[in-house]
Amino acid sequence: MAEETADPAGRDDDAYALKRERVQAILLAISSGDAARLGRLLDQLHPADIADLMEQVGDKTRHLLLRFWGRDIDGEILSELDESVRQEVIEMLPDDVLSEAVLDLESDDIVDILEDMEEDKKGVVLDALPASERVAVEQALGYPEFSAGRMMQREVVTAPEYWNVGQAIDYLREESENLPEQFYHVILVDPRMRPTGYVTLGKLLSTPRETPMRDATEHSFRTVPVDQDESEVAYAFNQYHLISVPVVDANDRLVGVITIDDAMAVLDDEHEEDMLRLAGVTEESSLSDTAIETTKLRLPWLAVNLATAILASLVIALFEGAIGEIVALAVLMPIVASMGGNAGTQSLTVAVRAIATKDLTGSNVWRVVGRELLVGLLNGLFFAIVMGIVALLWFGSTQLGLVIALAMVVNLAVAALAGILVPVMMEKLGVDPALASGTFVTTVTDVVGFFAFLGLAAVVLL
Amino acid sequence: MAEETADPAGRDDDAYALKRERVQAILLAISSGDAARLGRLLDQLHPADIADLMEQVGDKTRHLLLRFWGRDIDGEILSELDESVRQEVIEMLPDDVLSEAVLDLESDDIVDILEDMEEDKKGVVLDALPASERVAVEQALGYPEFSAGRMMQREVVTAPEYWNVGQAIDYLREESENLPEQFYHVILVDPRMRPTGYVTLGKLLSTPRETPMRDATEHSFRTVPVDQDESEVAYAFNQYHLISVPVVDANDRLVGVITIDDAMAVLDDEHEEDMLRLAGVTEESSLSDTAIETTKLRLPWLAVNLATAILASLVIALFEGAIGEIVALAVLMPIVASMGGNAGTQSLTVAVRAIATKDLTGSNVWRVVGRELLVGLLNGLFFAIVMGIVALLWFGSTQLGLVIALAMVVNLAVAALAGILVPVMMEKLGVDPALASGTFVTTVTDVVGFFAFLGLAAVVLL
Repeated sequence: MAEETADPAGRDDDAYALKRERVQAILLAISSGDAARLGRLLDQLHPADIADLMEQVGDKTRHLLLRFWGRDIDGEILSELDESVRQEVIEMLPDDVLSEAVLDLESDDIVDILEDMEEDKKGVVLDALPASERVAVEQALGYPEFSAGRMMQREVVTAPEYWNVGQAIDYLREESENLPEQFYHVILVDPRMRPTGYVTLGKLLSTPRETPMRDATEHSFRTVPVDQDESEVAYAFNQYHLISVPVVDANDRLVGVITIDDAMAVLDDEHEEDMLRLAGVTEESSLSDTAIETTKLRLPWLAVNLATAILASLVIALFEGAIGEIVALAVLMPIVASMGGNAGTQSLTVAVRAIATKDLTGSNVWRVVGRELLVGLLNGLFFAIVMGIVALLWFGSTQLGLVIALAMVVNLAVAALAGILVPVMMEKLGVDPALASGTFVTTVTDVVGFFAFLGLAAVVLL
Repeated sequence: MAEETADPAGRDDDAYALKRERVQAILLAISSGDAARLGRLLDQLHPADIADLMEQVGDKTRHLLLRFWGRDIDGEILSELDESVRQEVIEMLPDDVLSEAVLDLESDDIVDILEDMEEDKKGVVLDALPASERVAVEQALGYPEFSAGRMMQREVVTAPEYWNVGQAIDYLREESENLPEQFYHVILVDPRMRPTGYVTLGKLLSTPRETPMRDATEHSFRTVPVDQDESEVAYAFNQYHLISVPVVDANDRLVGVITIDDAMAVLDDEHEEDMLRLAGVTEESSLSDTAIETTKLRLPWLAVNLATAILASLVIALFEGAIGEIVALAVLMPIVASMGGNAGTQSLTVAVRAIATKDLTGSNVWRVVGRELLVGLLNGLFFAIVMGIVALLWFGSTQLGLVIALAMVVNLAVAALAGILVPVMMEKLGVDPALASGTFVTTVTDVVGFFAFLGLAAVVLL
């Protein structure tokens, strides 16, 4: 058991990935049915790491783990699990274990777990909650999915705006039992519960007791409407370096607070979504999905791609005669299309990211379009010369070199334009540019690439 | 000036993008040289928004803005600017304005600005700093780039581990002048300045004065070595829901503290890097780069792609004879390659993301490889049937349908394998899988796609 004493956290100093030996020890304890040892090993891990472990092992191992250790599971582990694994785990847990695990969590985490739960299990958990918390959770579930209302915790620390620092400190001491686990500000509210400012705890601790709270508030104060989209909330945290933000209802009344750790998790999810969507993976929930589930998730986008690939083939079919006479055209045509596809993807990715960070706006879109076109022309010119020479040397035909050079300039310019204009238009139409743009752009570059090259060839060479 | 009074923040409720009318008003003030009005308009914006605005306008407008308003620029704006624009702005600012602006910042932000500055300007800023801060900043610059040492702030709040809560509170009150602007924990240190735990400010406020600090520490306490990579630090914050983390040197002595807002910014940068690198954009610093700069950044990867596209063409050239006899092969061959490329990109992106989140590890890599292969075969089978029928109907040849169906299965299975194995091997070799894998995977799918389809056709059809 040397590894347990040597590094209780079971993690490398440099890398936070779970150590292989630790995982092996846990797997061994599971396979040998040594529940006591398994418990000891797991107790040394952070709940987030236990959740990762449960996602990484196979179905059977996970079931055994739950059989030996399921009664010790705590709410934080459930909260950290990927949705698909979490559902499976929840199905396996006895009702009393489930409701006890959930009881420890803050309201925002309970909401997060409940929103994907089956109705019967949802009832079990809700019934186990104290009445006041149940009402709070049910209200939160009434807000739209992916809104600030779902992200926020209901536990807030407030003070009337006319208090001084000493009064606020005394109040916190008296109420110490009822304070949330994590809070960073005392929110000042007017008599109608509208937040008017906040004071950081550091400021509270370092300001003389007689100072009015109002004079200790932060300049950075801002509130978030309860129905605001979670991605906008995460953006605001990152843009304005916020730590926590009061959430208000339509009447500007305080209903909760969102803290930066939740905003960071949303930012991370949003990034994952953008990245996967750009690659045509719409809803990959986790590595622990089965092959069938994964196939179902990836097939639709491949089907769209097949349709567009056939469209490109129809363009080629228009020039079957030319290809039959000059087979070199068939050899060279994928190069033009491939270069266009790659240049288009470059522009597209930069544009999608710039839209997400709000760096690409109505104010600068035309300047950026102009720049992209120029970049496309410059790269087009460069690769036109290179590829013209390659074609000339390869097939010994100046005309063929000229045709591929021209087609390259046309396709790289069109690729650059499509790469920026398609996502901008998607955004205007209210469609996530990361989701739909890729197919459009590569369709454009394939069709234009084949058409320009084969069309020019038909005119010049035949 | 209605818009100024109506919404002082100049932002939508739903969207944090700068309002177009606000931008127009600022542009008008700049073009009409109305410095007073420009100052009033900018004063209402958050420094992060002013920085965004400066990035979004063109070079000339930015120069004019700095001419009219440069003396009022504050350090936070510099800190928020993208590197390329920041360098340009710093070059334009008079030395006294620059050093005054930087003086307000915390040490981590000063380090961030200094690390990319030209030597002469760096000297100007360093000379303007108070001696103690200069030493701190110079020490920080001695740590490797992208390490915890560069991210951390040197301003820390510590207490001896034998104190009680009351002593810590009294100390904070006495030292109120010297406390950092933002802090969330009091770090307990032993006599050799090694951190042994931390107490949140909320806990400090709600715990009886006579309680030993040691009894109020957080379970989540962990430290970060000063040379740890910033991406690992960001991962730890996100994984363990940390708010701030003490940074220690090789002797475990406290040297600084990293707060979650900086970790969130790093997480955001890392995501951007992954996303852009996957698309073959290695170092796009900002939308405000010129077309020449952008072309230079994008050209290298397109050059690599040209080389691989030519490789694929060489494979096609092997089968010139077959294509000359059956032109339908030229029409259909891009479909096989395109489907492989897309399926490979799907696997690849999921794998790159899973490596970044440490969900794909030595413990589960073979299970995931097996799953990907199965997914590739299932999708391959589906599209083999679809495309076989399409080819049969289009060209009236059962054999051609059979050939493309077989090639589809082979290429989608290979694509799935390459999509996961290439990034895993890159990671093992210490190369960023986001950077280099894309080219490898599409090269494999192009070469295999053309070879399988044309090779089978040559055997079966000729």
